Amino acid sequence: MNLYQEETIVALATPNGIGAIGVIRLSGAQAISIINSVFKGKNLELQDSHTIHFGTIRDGENIVDEVLVSLFVAPKSYTKENVVEVSCHGSKYIIDAIIKLFIKQGARLAKHGEFTLRAFLNGGLDLSQAEAVADLIASNSKASHQLALQQMRGGFSNELKLLREQLIHFASMIELELDFGEEDVEFANRDDLKRLILNIHQIIYKLIQSFNLGNVIKNGVPVVIAGKPNVGKSTLLNALLNEERAIVSEIAGTTRDTIEDEINIKGINFRFIDTAGIRETQDIVEAKGVERTFEKIKSSAIVMYLFDAKETDEAELKEILADLKEVISANSSTLIVVANKSDIHELNYEIDEDILQISAKEKSNLEILEAALLNAVNLNALNSDDVIISNIRHLQALQKTEDALNRVLGGIDNPVTSDFLALDIKQALHYLGEIVGTVTTDDLLENIFSKFCIGK
Amino acid sequence: MNLYQEETIVALATPNGIGAIGVIRLSGAQAISIINSVFKGKNLELQDSHTIHFGTIRDGENIVDEVLVSLFVAPKSYTKENVVEVSCHGSKYIIDAIIKLFIKQGARLAKHGEFTLRAFLNGGLDLSQAEAVADLIASNSKASHQLALQQMRGGFSNELKLLREQLIHFASMIELELDFGEEDVEFANRDDLKRLILNIHQIIYKLIQSFNLGNVIKNGVPVVIAGKPNVGKSTLLNALLNEERAIVSEIAGTTRDTIEDEINIKGINFRFIDTAGIRETQDIVEAKGVERTFEKIKSSAIVMYLFDAKETDEAELKEILADLKEVISANSSTLIVVANKSDIHELNYEIDEDILQISAKEKSNLEILEAALLNAVNLNALNSDDVIISNIRHLQALQKTEDALNRVLGGIDNPVTSDFLALDIKQALHYLGEIVGTVTTDDLLENIFSKFCIGK
Repeated sequence: MNLYQEETIVALATPNGIGAIGVIRLSGAQAISIINSVFKGKNLELQDSHTIHFGTIRDGENIVDEVLVSLFVAPKSYTKENVVEVSCHGSKYIIDAIIKLFIKQGARLAKHGEFTLRAFLNGGLDLSQAEAVADLIASNSKASHQLALQQMRGGFSNELKLLREQLIHFASMIELELDFGEEDVEFANRDDLKRLILNIHQIIYKLIQSFNLGNVIKNGVPVVIAGKPNVGKSTLLNALLNEERAIVSEIAGTTRDTIEDEINIKGINFRFIDTAGIRETQDIVEAKGVERTFEKIKSSAIVMYLFDAKETDEAELKEILADLKEVISANSSTLIVVANKSDIHELNYEIDEDILQISAKEKSNLEILEAALLNAVNLNALNSDDVIISNIRHLQALQKTEDALNRVLGGIDNPVTSDFLALDIKQALHYLGEIVGTVTTDDLLENIFSKFCIGK
Repeated sequence: MNLYQEETIVALATPNGIGAIGVIRLSGAQAISIINSVFKGKNLELQDSHTIHFGTIRDGENIVDEVLVSLFVAPKSYTKENVVEVSCHGSKYIIDAIIKLFIKQGARLAKHGEFTLRAFLNGGLDLSQAEAVADLIASNSKASHQLALQQMRGGFSNELKLLREQLIHFASMIELELDFGEEDVEFANRDDLKRLILNIHQIIYKLIQSFNLGNVIKNGVPVVIAGKPNVGKSTLLNALLNEERAIVSEIAGTTRDTIEDEINIKGINFRFIDTAGIRETQDIVEAKGVERTFEKIKSSAIVMYLFDAKETDEAELKEILADLKEVISANSSTLIVVANKSDIHELNYEIDEDILQISAKEKSNLEILEAALLNAVNLNALNSDDVIISNIRHLQALQKTEDALNRVLGGIDNPVTSDFLALDIKQALHYLGEIVGTVTTDDLLENIFSKFCIGK
């Protein structure tokens, strides 16, 4: 236990604002004696864990509030320390008064994420699980919620634990060889080792690949709506959003700036980015908009090209799509080609790409478009039990692990001495350990937990 | 019990927004069976009241969240019904999912204040206590908090209960006389009755008088700062607020509109109202400001007249104060006369009123001004155990009670028949009963509880 954990911390665990109740949380060795010193009711130091007690909180003779006190006796709590939760009336005045009173009795204000940090330090959660707690609170779609919950419940940790155990086994064998260095023995069979490393390498590779999906699930799938002015981009966005957010106008070139909005389709958040048109223009403001459109296309998972079914002939469409595909191919985005205004004109030609015919104005065929959007996201992985990573810190650690494993494989194929092999295997273990927190630094912890809200 | 109370209600009890946890509350006969149907962990129907249980909430096979469930078994709960509180991760997505799940299992969304309404209907609180719960949540100063807490804990109710019991005793005596109507007996001694009514009348009168104090404590004490342009009203306001809210300028007539702000002095909120000057003006916008100043003066508890110590001679000051007092006397506000700019000029005359000499710019002598403000509020009543009313509904009921008691007194002095006396006593009882809720109508309840937040 760190020295500072001897302090008892306090924070409001519920949001600020108007509500029926507020919950104030204490954690630390003194949590129960602190509440007991200001509580009139039963003697809370004599009560069982996981019990609730009604009484009043008093500052000297003055009653501050009637409250319910929940007791969690160490180690049967979130932080594994003594934890007390005080449910009081949801008045800012009362909440402040109670927190101040606890501080007067010896508690101190908790820092961001300090309750969860303590849960990690006391072995209640590993680091990737702790990170998932923050993701869970921030989750705003079915998919992002599912991802965070799986991670919090240890899905990812278990997968990594297995890999680490196998690696540790071989590492110790190779260490043994080092001990018998003079005798040139091989306790660790090189073929077995290679098979193991290849196997682990494949799993790590799959985890790294899953990041793209994990990232879009967590942050929303960016979809650029591109197309010439006046083809109905804003109208389509509005139809999809089912509300009038973007400015719609008959004047070509109205949508000068990019506007973002999210819609949720079957549990996945799509971030739609409406763009300025891509035609040649003399207008400086609009020219900047066109430039920004290309930037947005480059950073999107899906590019939807929208054109006017009546105004666009086959040759022109093919030319534009060829240009677009050049920009898109660099970052393996998916292209969806959409012919708008199907209510006034039906397309009379076909090209290599599928063309979805819709009417944004009449809101017809939008379900086909939605299906195409969902299809562009690899949902199979989501629906299986495969672990999906969504945290860039994990991605980076996995990439470093992969590098170390590649060095191990190179060392087996072009034989190097056992001590070099041992070094690379230890490096791989180190980076895997960083993810779950068996290897940590204060900076790393500071960086992770400072992003939490206070009270968690 | 009302029929609709057979339904189990659900609501978020904590504020919306970002926080570590959210608490969802269920109340009703089915509360425990509903949570049990979606909870994986212990069988919650077999657990004791006031215990907490860790487990997961599941929608079919899908885990929605890991939660803590607190059980309150009827009648040992706030509503006197079975109550369940689910503490989940503070994500809007999760909270919505859990509430929807409970609704699917048979709960319905609670209406504003419905938990407290049930507490009232089931005898857990009387009506004035229930109203104090909302006041307590809204309390934002030490004094308003103390007022609400006293009322919630039954201070007012106990006082009224005593009065009602005494009245009921006499009412039944007089009813008895009516039964023996032909025989002209007097079971209720008229002198005793008169003494009792006078006593009750005095208590009611005191309660009515306390409303002015209660109201300003609850809503803040309105203080108008009046004075000619450029005497330093805005500077004083800023000095008191210790922040730059009002616009300060050297140009006379800058503060055209009234600006309000609250500061807390020793636990009492004062609402300072900075006003346009009161000089003659040709400017229409400013003329409207002057008019508004007089309106504000009329509706304030305290009027602070501020003048420039150097620029104002005795005759002029006396004239202005005479005018002001005319406006003020109509509504018994307190006048505080303040000479500003004491740093550059000391006053060389005295008048009938006390003049506080301050310097807003140098922030000197402001503590004397604060003491004068506090003195203008009758704080003795606050610091004693006297009941102070702050609810206009209670004021109106007390005024009607007073009228009825006056009729009883009249009926004793100019003897009327027992049945008239009985009628007036019953009326007094009726109005007293409205306060605590022994007499209610659906409209009254609707009116009171619709002002609550949902989840309380």
